[in-house]
Amino acid sequence: MSKYVYLFSEIDAAEEVSSRDWDRVRGLLGGKGANLADMHRQGIPVPPGFTITTEACNDFLAAGKTLPAGLWDEILSATARVEKDTEKKFGDPTRPLLISCRSGAKISMPGMMDTVLNIGLNDDVAQGMVDRTGDPRFVYDLYRRLIQMLGGVVLGVPDEMFEAVIQTRRERAGVNTDSELSAEDWHAITDKFKDVVRTYASQEFPTDPYEQLRLATESVFLSWNGKRAVDYRNAAGIAHDLGTAVNIQTMVFGNMGPASGTGVAMSRNASTGERELEGDFLLNAQGEDVVAGIRKTLPISALNDEFPELYKQFRDIAQKLEQHYRNMQDMEFTIERGKLWILQTRDGKRTAQAEVRIAADMAEEKLIDRGEAVRRVRPEQVDFFLHPQLDEVALKEHQPLATGLNVSPGAAVGVVALDADTAERWGKEGGREVIMARPETKPDDVHGMLSAQGVITQRGGRTSHAALVARQFGKPAVVGVEELEFDLEERVLRLGEEVIKEGDWISIDGTNGLIYLGKLPTVVPDLNNPYLLKILSWADAIRRLRVRTNADYPPDAERAREYGAEGIGLCRTEHMFFEQERLPIVQRMILAKSATERSEAINELLPFQRDDFEGLFRAMDGLPVVIRLLDPPLHEFMPSYDELIRDLGDLKMRLQHYHTMSEIDQALDEIRTKQDYLDRVSSLREANPMLGTRGVRLGTLIPDLTRMQVRAIAEAACRCKREGIDVHPEIMVPLTAHVNELRSQREILDAEIRAVFEEQSLEFEYKVGTMIEIPRAALTAAQMAEVAEFFSFGTNDLTQTTFGISRDDAEQGFLMSYIRSGILPSNPFDTIDRDGVGQLIDMAVRTGRQVRPDIETGICGEHGGDPASIALCHELGLSYVSCSPFRVPIARLAAAHAVLEENGS
Amino acid sequence: MSKYVYLFSEIDAAEEVSSRDWDRVRGLLGGKGANLADMHRQGIPVPPGFTITTEACNDFLAAGKTLPAGLWDEILSATARVEKDTEKKFGDPTRPLLISCRSGAKISMPGMMDTVLNIGLNDDVAQGMVDRTGDPRFVYDLYRRLIQMLGGVVLGVPDEMFEAVIQTRRERAGVNTDSELSAEDWHAITDKFKDVVRTYASQEFPTDPYEQLRLATESVFLSWNGKRAVDYRNAAGIAHDLGTAVNIQTMVFGNMGPASGTGVAMSRNASTGERELEGDFLLNAQGEDVVAGIRKTLPISALNDEFPELYKQFRDIAQKLEQHYRNMQDMEFTIERGKLWILQTRDGKRTAQAEVRIAADMAEEKLIDRGEAVRRVRPEQVDFFLHPQLDEVALKEHQPLATGLNVSPGAAVGVVALDADTAERWGKEGGREVIMARPETKPDDVHGMLSAQGVITQRGGRTSHAALVARQFGKPAVVGVEELEFDLEERVLRLGEEVIKEGDWISIDGTNGLIYLGKLPTVVPDLNNPYLLKILSWADAIRRLRVRTNADYPPDAERAREYGAEGIGLCRTEHMFFEQERLPIVQRMILAKSATERSEAINELLPFQRDDFEGLFRAMDGLPVVIRLLDPPLHEFMPSYDELIRDLGDLKMRLQHYHTMSEIDQALDEIRTKQDYLDRVSSLREANPMLGTRGVRLGTLIPDLTRMQVRAIAEAACRCKREGIDVHPEIMVPLTAHVNELRSQREILDAEIRAVFEEQSLEFEYKVGTMIEIPRAALTAAQMAEVAEFFSFGTNDLTQTTFGISRDDAEQGFLMSYIRSGILPSNPFDTIDRDGVGQLIDMAVRTGRQVRPDIETGICGEHGGDPASIALCHELGLSYVSCSPFRVPIARLAAAHAVLEENGS
Repeated sequence: MSKYVYLFSEIDAAEEVSSRDWDRVRGLLGGKGANLADMHRQGIPVPPGFTITTEACNDFLAAGKTLPAGLWDEILSATARVEKDTEKKFGDPTRPLLISCRSGAKISMPGMMDTVLNIGLNDDVAQGMVDRTGDPRFVYDLYRRLIQMLGGVVLGVPDEMFEAVIQTRRERAGVNTDSELSAEDWHAITDKFKDVVRTYASQEFPTDPYEQLRLATESVFLSWNGKRAVDYRNAAGIAHDLGTAVNIQTMVFGNMGPASGTGVAMSRNASTGERELEGDFLLNAQGEDVVAGIRKTLPISALNDEFPELYKQFRDIAQKLEQHYRNMQDMEFTIERGKLWILQTRDGKRTAQAEVRIAADMAEEKLIDRGEAVRRVRPEQVDFFLHPQLDEVALKEHQPLATGLNVSPGAAVGVVALDADTAERWGKEGGREVIMARPETKPDDVHGMLSAQGVITQRGGRTSHAALVARQFGKPAVVGVEELEFDLEERVLRLGEEVIKEGDWISIDGTNGLIYLGKLPTVVPDLNNPYLLKILSWADAIRRLRVRTNADYPPDAERAREYGAEGIGLCRTEHMFFEQERLPIVQRMILAKSATERSEAINELLPFQRDDFEGLFRAMDGLPVVIRLLDPPLHEFMPSYDELIRDLGDLKMRLQHYHTMSEIDQALDEIRTKQDYLDRVSSLREANPMLGTRGVRLGTLIPDLTRMQVRAIAEAACRCKREGIDVHPEIMVPLTAHVNELRSQREILDAEIRAVFEEQSLEFEYKVGTMIEIPRAALTAAQMAEVAEFFSFGTNDLTQTTFGISRDDAEQGFLMSYIRSGILPSNPFDTIDRDGVGQLIDMAVRTGRQVRPDIETGICGEHGGDPASIALCHELGLSYVSCSPFRVPIARLAAAHAVLEENGS
Repeated sequence: MSKYVYLFSEIDAAEEVSSRDWDRVRGLLGGKGANLADMHRQGIPVPPGFTITTEACNDFLAAGKTLPAGLWDEILSATARVEKDTEKKFGDPTRPLLISCRSGAKISMPGMMDTVLNIGLNDDVAQGMVDRTGDPRFVYDLYRRLIQMLGGVVLGVPDEMFEAVIQTRRERAGVNTDSELSAEDWHAITDKFKDVVRTYASQEFPTDPYEQLRLATESVFLSWNGKRAVDYRNAAGIAHDLGTAVNIQTMVFGNMGPASGTGVAMSRNASTGERELEGDFLLNAQGEDVVAGIRKTLPISALNDEFPELYKQFRDIAQKLEQHYRNMQDMEFTIERGKLWILQTRDGKRTAQAEVRIAADMAEEKLIDRGEAVRRVRPEQVDFFLHPQLDEVALKEHQPLATGLNVSPGAAVGVVALDADTAERWGKEGGREVIMARPETKPDDVHGMLSAQGVITQRGGRTSHAALVARQFGKPAVVGVEELEFDLEERVLRLGEEVIKEGDWISIDGTNGLIYLGKLPTVVPDLNNPYLLKILSWADAIRRLRVRTNADYPPDAERAREYGAEGIGLCRTEHMFFEQERLPIVQRMILAKSATERSEAINELLPFQRDDFEGLFRAMDGLPVVIRLLDPPLHEFMPSYDELIRDLGDLKMRLQHYHTMSEIDQALDEIRTKQDYLDRVSSLREANPMLGTRGVRLGTLIPDLTRMQVRAIAEAACRCKREGIDVHPEIMVPLTAHVNELRSQREILDAEIRAVFEEQSLEFEYKVGTMIEIPRAALTAAQMAEVAEFFSFGTNDLTQTTFGISRDDAEQGFLMSYIRSGILPSNPFDTIDRDGVGQLIDMAVRTGRQVRPDIETGICGEHGGDPASIALCHELGLSYVSCSPFRVPIARLAAAHAVLEENGS
């Protein structure tokens, strides 16, 4: 039989405490429980108590929601031990023990599960406490809270009913806030609460403290599978079978008069990462008042003014805990009549900016090593640095409408939605950009926050629910905007004179805590955050994968190089064909009626292409530049068939309205031209263009096209080399399925390059390779490697052909339904499918290397910027990944993570 | 240094003769040379001579057309040896040796290379022979032939010039045939021929016999690379690097008076395979007169009338040779003044019918074993039995226009083309069906014959060029239709009163040697040829692959079963959806605006499908029936987008012409209906339908469709089983890419079948499997095999996705250009691509078996009827191939060949 209950003090000597087992301990006792025991071990003042294990929770749930055998006895004896340690007694009016009952999963899920405080109170105990403390106001406030919480979570009484009782009492007393209510008020409220329970739940409020304890414990267990918790786990990617532990702890009271208080603090600034205590503090209050954001909190520094000794003690404890856990700590504390108690500590949630700075600082402080610093920064967090910020130029012309707390950085622009359901409907489902605005947020509001671009609230501090969740999910947020008034009848926000209707555009600056009216322009910041640069340079030293970029134009190439790209992995030459002055030439080439006419058009494109390539070689001086020969089917350069049919129909219809001969002649001319286009487009039309005449098939049918492109590359390279630029062109043949295609193209292009070498009396080194984006190319990679000096996996097309899926169609159609219903674990166009596409890449790399050991291998599909795919590329031993310029920093980090993961750190 | 020359008698003792080396000997000496030596060894009367090896030919060609060192000396000493054996002397007027010089490649290429006869003649020798024989007519006929042949092949004088000389002489003499010309005529012709050579080639006709020999030998070497020979090898698939040997042999003369003659005969009937001598014979003639078909030949049986002793001797020799070579022999013989000489023997060319009968007979005669009999019949020859024959019913109403020799069986229908170029232009290039008609055919005409459906000639016998080539390439042919008159000026054929213009339709019956006017209907014969049935039954005993059929309707299934199908490998259920009474229901299903409406339409299809399946189960009583769930995209059941757009445009245009309200209302109604169709078709439209919403993707999106089809299968199976029919349904899920698709469909269909089992209180065994037609399915076959009880490789789609080729587009486009230019060795839609698609099949079979050792594997693409693909399927260890009913016998044979090939027999 398992041991289900551990006293905080019991872990001291237990073998589980060895760091090797720490993860198991956290799994068993939950993060909060493990930390309480750990803190106790370190001499941190923790109120005595014990933890019921996650196993107990799972066994309870598995057994149809009945307490497993032995558990209750263990709880009873642990309670007895706490009674002994505190010299108090459960249910004893003369020296009553009050306890709290809180959830505590392995991975923190703030506010998602149930909590019951002040267990142990009943009429007798309350009277005894009044007798002992002489503070009936305090006692009945505690008592009514117990009834409210137990009534709510165990008996299912809606919180609104309790709040209505208090509201009525406030009105009767003619006061605005709860703190103005008298002892008598609270006593009356307590009685009314019991009435509410009796009526609503058809049962008496349980007065036996042990009954209260049992109900609260079961309620916490049950809340593991509550809708909120399940939704949260789905969103955060937490496993559903972990279960929650339950922490039973002696109550300490922050609301026992002016020498009492309660607060929440981070050991470093959770927004910026600065090394300073940051948090909220309330005098004479219980903990949930701080988190709920109902009362305006004081900053933690205010503690120093009130209780300098305690502030120093707390600062020392914070530092000790940070040293111990080697991470920034998020701590709850209570001061009861001048004594500081730490209620819990955990790794603090933080913004991406803070994560990066804390990781870099801690590595510099030698608290962690550089690998650990790199490991801590998640790719999504680097992504944050690429999030838009409000355009500073535009900001000069806009005054902020209001100011609040800058709890989650970045800019967000959207239409105001006044509740979570609306935000979800407009945002996630409707595809609109939404800013969710709420008086404050509760766990019920998370789905709205996830659907919104950003969040604003009227109430709440840095550690409020809104702030925590927004930071975690990287949503820009401004909270505690006190001047904001919500009119949910009229569905408007008022800000002084200003009225913002639901659906109006606003812009928020989460970095500076500002709100603007209207839709402001945003800009992507540069990546010059010094801490990020530090982390990325450490990542560079760790990673084995090279990172290149997909860039078609010199400015993109330059930016990518600033972001750390080590060359171009994919230049799509066709993008240049679409430019305004070139498209007519391209169309002339396609419409050509003779080979000569066609060759003339092709040769007109040569100087354009040469200039393009020259710019790329300059930008990538000293680095490789992979240039892909023309890939898309020719009809993509022409007007669409449907469009031409429609235009022709219109032209013919209009013919009857012309009156002069010259009008008619002109119209007939136009019709003839369109008809020419239509004829050619019809002949190019394919049932399945994705599998049609494109890629190497074009170059094989029109070798002059290959010759022109290769000549442009070679001439550009010669020109650059003559200027002292170090050029490394790599010419890539796309869509190869049979080695003979590659062989025949290679002959053409080698010959053309040799011709340029002779004309220019200059040579440069170059590579010829192929895209592997057709299953057959991967299957016959050994043959391909005889001709190709490099392979670049075009994972977009390879995914399409390996799955037999047309991306254009499928992402509008069945594919999304497949992902929703779980037939596919994820979208294979986001993350490389390991079993299918990954297997082909693996085969190709292995068999290719057998033939040509130094063959260069990379990927250039969109997967090149996806961390999971990058990890797979590392595992498969590719030489590099190539991604869009903005994904380069993410790829650098993800490539380092792959190494760290491999090394098991 | 190689030995280049071998006397026929020299092989006797040579080690090369062991059967192990026989193939090498044939390679070295050519088929004819090896057989001459072999015949000599067996005591067959062969005129003395020697063979110059194929190595000599290759060395000659490689050395820039100069005789390799040593060769000439070897020829001289071999010639001396022949002089000794024959007691004659080269160039000696008193006892002159005349010799022939003939090509002889390893694989026979009749008439494609050069021959020179009567070498050794000059004015002195001729005079000496006249003196000795007293027959100047005979001598100058020989002499003019030498000049004609050497002048033609060595000096390039067109044969027409020589023929014109003879024609002029005939006219002057007032005679119609050459045999009426006198000695004096031939002497004058000889002199004129020398004049022609002198004028045309600007050189004297060479009078030195050794010079003649050298020129003839070189000419034979050169003819290996002549256009005719190269074309023939390309058509027949013979390697170009084999080279030809040259046979130098003492001349014997069939034209030395009434006791002389010459002929060609087969040891069995080359058309029917009957066991009887068959051939052509001419009294007092040289051999080429028989082959060229210029003189009307006598049947070989006439020899018995003229020379019964010699006929008996020849018959014995024929039998001896057949026993020796264990194959039907094609022999040339000459009778010189009552002595029989065998000039050559080789395996005889024959019709498919003859091949089958001879193979079966020889196995029954124990001359060969059954495996060898099966091996000898080529799949194309079985295909012949499926060639059309003229419809017997139609024949009752048609009188044949003419009768000729039935030299190559089968019916052909086409328009008349009067020369080979026209036949090629109309047939191969123009795609028309053509019958080539010629006075006689020559090697220059082969390209026309290959482009035609059939051939007719005015002249020629069973062994004429036309007959041999037609039989070899399976072209129906009627030759020797003497009443046919060619008017090449008017481009018409005349047959008595009847005038057939070039381009008119005619029909020919090569089986019976008949020609009909017009385009007659044809029918496919049944396969009840007893010899073929024997061969196929032996093949069945040898093969390991099972053969199933692709059949959608009960009559197809029944026919396939007659042809030997062992079950249905693919029933395409969608074919049934297109039937007239069902299509409206299918369209209603597609247009349905609610799930209920859709389900109603689906359920209306149930009884139709149930009846379909019942018929199939009945036809395949006791055998497996693989039924594929719905595969094609839904838009295939709807009018096309382009069509709807056009129709709608027309309807709207017409609207202005209506005058009554009811007309307008009706038109508006029509427009609305079309618009509904268009809306739905637009929403179903996909950029790449091949990779779109079809196959299992349909069944996943519309589970009711799967349920309906499975219920139809299950109810049909129950109904049949109740009647005592042994049902083996195998339900196949198409286009699977991920195992979860299969798993989810399997759950649905297992549940539906269980429901039917309960309703019917009856159960049957069934299998569930999947098509493997997407690369990912093959790559993850181990996962698929956990759910699938069988794999059926859909090699059409698997080829499309593995190559990234859309067949519809590519076979009109780049694919054909790829095959023409040799980038692809063959069309991967005809023969499975071993390296790519074959590798996937191999992986899937191996990994699938690791998970489920008894998994059933087969192919059901069109490759199932292609012999090369069947051999690959055998090699990869598949359980069965499935093909169209008409390919079933071919597949049975090809599957046996695969075993024989594997065993190295």
